[in-house]
Amino acid sequence: MRYLEFPVAEVKERIKKLQQGLAKAGMKGAIITAESNFYYFTGYRTHTPWTTHARATWLFIPADGEGVLLVHSFVVPEAKSRSVVTDVRSYDSLLGTPIGQVKEIMTELGMNQGRIGMELGREQRLGIDYQHLEALRKELPSAEFEDISKILWDLRMIKSPSEIDFLRLACQAADYALDHVFDEIHEGMTEKEISRRVSRLMLEGGAEGVGFVIIVSGKGNYERISAIATERKLEKGDMVWLDISAMVGGYFTDYCRAGVVGGPTGEQIRLWDITHAVTMKAIAKITPGMPIAEIARECGRAMQERGIDLSFDCGRMGHGIGLNSTEPPHNAVYDDTILQPGMTFTVEPGIVNDLGVFDIEENVVVTANGYELLSRADRNLHTIR
Amino acid sequence: MRYLEFPVAEVKERIKKLQQGLAKAGMKGAIITAESNFYYFTGYRTHTPWTTHARATWLFIPADGEGVLLVHSFVVPEAKSRSVVTDVRSYDSLLGTPIGQVKEIMTELGMNQGRIGMELGREQRLGIDYQHLEALRKELPSAEFEDISKILWDLRMIKSPSEIDFLRLACQAADYALDHVFDEIHEGMTEKEISRRVSRLMLEGGAEGVGFVIIVSGKGNYERISAIATERKLEKGDMVWLDISAMVGGYFTDYCRAGVVGGPTGEQIRLWDITHAVTMKAIAKITPGMPIAEIARECGRAMQERGIDLSFDCGRMGHGIGLNSTEPPHNAVYDDTILQPGMTFTVEPGIVNDLGVFDIEENVVVTANGYELLSRADRNLHTIR
Repeated sequence: MRYLEFPVAEVKERIKKLQQGLAKAGMKGAIITAESNFYYFTGYRTHTPWTTHARATWLFIPADGEGVLLVHSFVVPEAKSRSVVTDVRSYDSLLGTPIGQVKEIMTELGMNQGRIGMELGREQRLGIDYQHLEALRKELPSAEFEDISKILWDLRMIKSPSEIDFLRLACQAADYALDHVFDEIHEGMTEKEISRRVSRLMLEGGAEGVGFVIIVSGKGNYERISAIATERKLEKGDMVWLDISAMVGGYFTDYCRAGVVGGPTGEQIRLWDITHAVTMKAIAKITPGMPIAEIARECGRAMQERGIDLSFDCGRMGHGIGLNSTEPPHNAVYDDTILQPGMTFTVEPGIVNDLGVFDIEENVVVTANGYELLSRADRNLHTIR
Repeated sequence: MRYLEFPVAEVKERIKKLQQGLAKAGMKGAIITAESNFYYFTGYRTHTPWTTHARATWLFIPADGEGVLLVHSFVVPEAKSRSVVTDVRSYDSLLGTPIGQVKEIMTELGMNQGRIGMELGREQRLGIDYQHLEALRKELPSAEFEDISKILWDLRMIKSPSEIDFLRLACQAADYALDHVFDEIHEGMTEKEISRRVSRLMLEGGAEGVGFVIIVSGKGNYERISAIATERKLEKGDMVWLDISAMVGGYFTDYCRAGVVGGPTGEQIRLWDITHAVTMKAIAKITPGMPIAEIARECGRAMQERGIDLSFDCGRMGHGIGLNSTEPPHNAVYDDTILQPGMTFTVEPGIVNDLGVFDIEENVVVTANGYELLSRADRNLHTIR
């Protein structure tokens, strides 16, 4: 039986575009092994991407012609039911992919010499043991392995309607969680309990899985803006800032909301409103054809107009979202990406001080004429009972 | 504020053992970048391990002396609140770790020449862009980077009491989910709905997160034993086989239960009972000092005694569980690991045919005198209404 996440034609089009990129670069082909790229170019998402390393998945795409999949025999039935690349080969060893078999496939595809593209550069990780690539280098001395991260990101940065649908569904799940969680938590609950609660709410809201939950609560913690939950119990006056990610179809959302136990002070509301206003002002500028750096600059300008120097710019005002929880483009002054319809990213200017984390973050997709706001959860600073 | 998952002394002891291994191998030190190892040797687990690649995390451990952490400035407050290695350095760029800074730290630690251990081999992945290692090789021509996967796995294979506590809690969460899910699902539900339901139940049962959900249902699908959920709706007579993973403290469980819509047939019960009996017979043999291969052989022998040749041995009858959802040792005839107290692994002989997936899988820890069964969910083949 066939089970597909994406239309077959769409995945074939992705492969075709990759092949065009390879041909233009004078490359013989590409080897794709990273979890996200492998799914993107085959339509087949494994059951344990990221955390199981005993069964490397290989996709060989020649610059011209049909590709070949090489996977462990255990996953062949599932691979066949999902992959758009239908030539599925397998290996039995669980102690490493047989490099001889890799060499044979590459020879068959004319990829045993010349320049071969791989995931060697920016924000890429190999999905194979490093030693396997080194062994392959020795087996194929006439082949040169070169980075194709720019080709990959240029493709993946532009999301298709079906990819945007997944992100839209994932945002609905995160919205549901953020619209309910502040009513369901209370003084005395631990951060770990809240993290589980908001995770459950994401699943109730339609998420397939939870990407992450960042939670900070209480003075002395607010600077820990990448924090995972602790056993700390909520106290009166604590701000609880939740930065969460819901996942549907392998796509990750990433945005935040917050509440204060007993209700926010006037100063907390003022800072929250500033962050909200600045975020929306920057988003309103989004237009295809403009540099993303302009959005980052607008965040800084709008904050300065309100008398605030950004206290946590972290080098960027947001980042791409997709099959990785953060990915290119960067919403940053140093990024030279020109916005195009289909790009999905976060806008997250923020203020961090002793009163809390004032960062609302939104997820947007660039459209033909402007933008669509994907994240829609209530934007008020909540009261936690 | 300090938030710790493990006792400080325990993490320091892990580092000390790594240093002993490095010294014995004649190495100057090690660079640790993979998500699981980084957490294991620092106590600091990042908010988005696996899926964010813009902020590489580096841990430098000299064969003698104190280690150094190098992380992106964004995560410094959280790193300082968690890491047992207290010398935390940072970089600001989001376009890649400055290799000059890496070189400086390595020079300071006497790791700028000689043999340096890295995660280059079996079931390891680098947590940095491949190009960064290549750049480092050029910067430090007198250093040789060598695989230390055996040293790492020899350490990580033996779980401490605190690690086993995490696995025990995670198993309680998976037990809770598997003891409830077959009562809560019904004819007409889709696999995706069931996947979300069992995920929610794991969180209700105390899981911090969901490692994975494998679900297969219905004839023509049973061979897809690595399947993720589809839109397929449950029909009368379908077996639903769930192979799930709950996560607590970063540790993954991995076991299965199943049910049949309308109740199982006599033949399904017979095959299920065989799998159950064989699994328990193999587990009963577990004793420290014996080869794990003997457990795998026992699975095969016990199946043969019952007239069954294993139809999906996948090369192994189970695998280690821990910070990776599968890891060494392999419960396999080709694995030469000798069982020691603290080893945690799965035992999963199974039968797959047109009637269903008959695989119960259990998670065990080797004790001083035998074993403890961590997975305790009801082992009957369930009836789904």
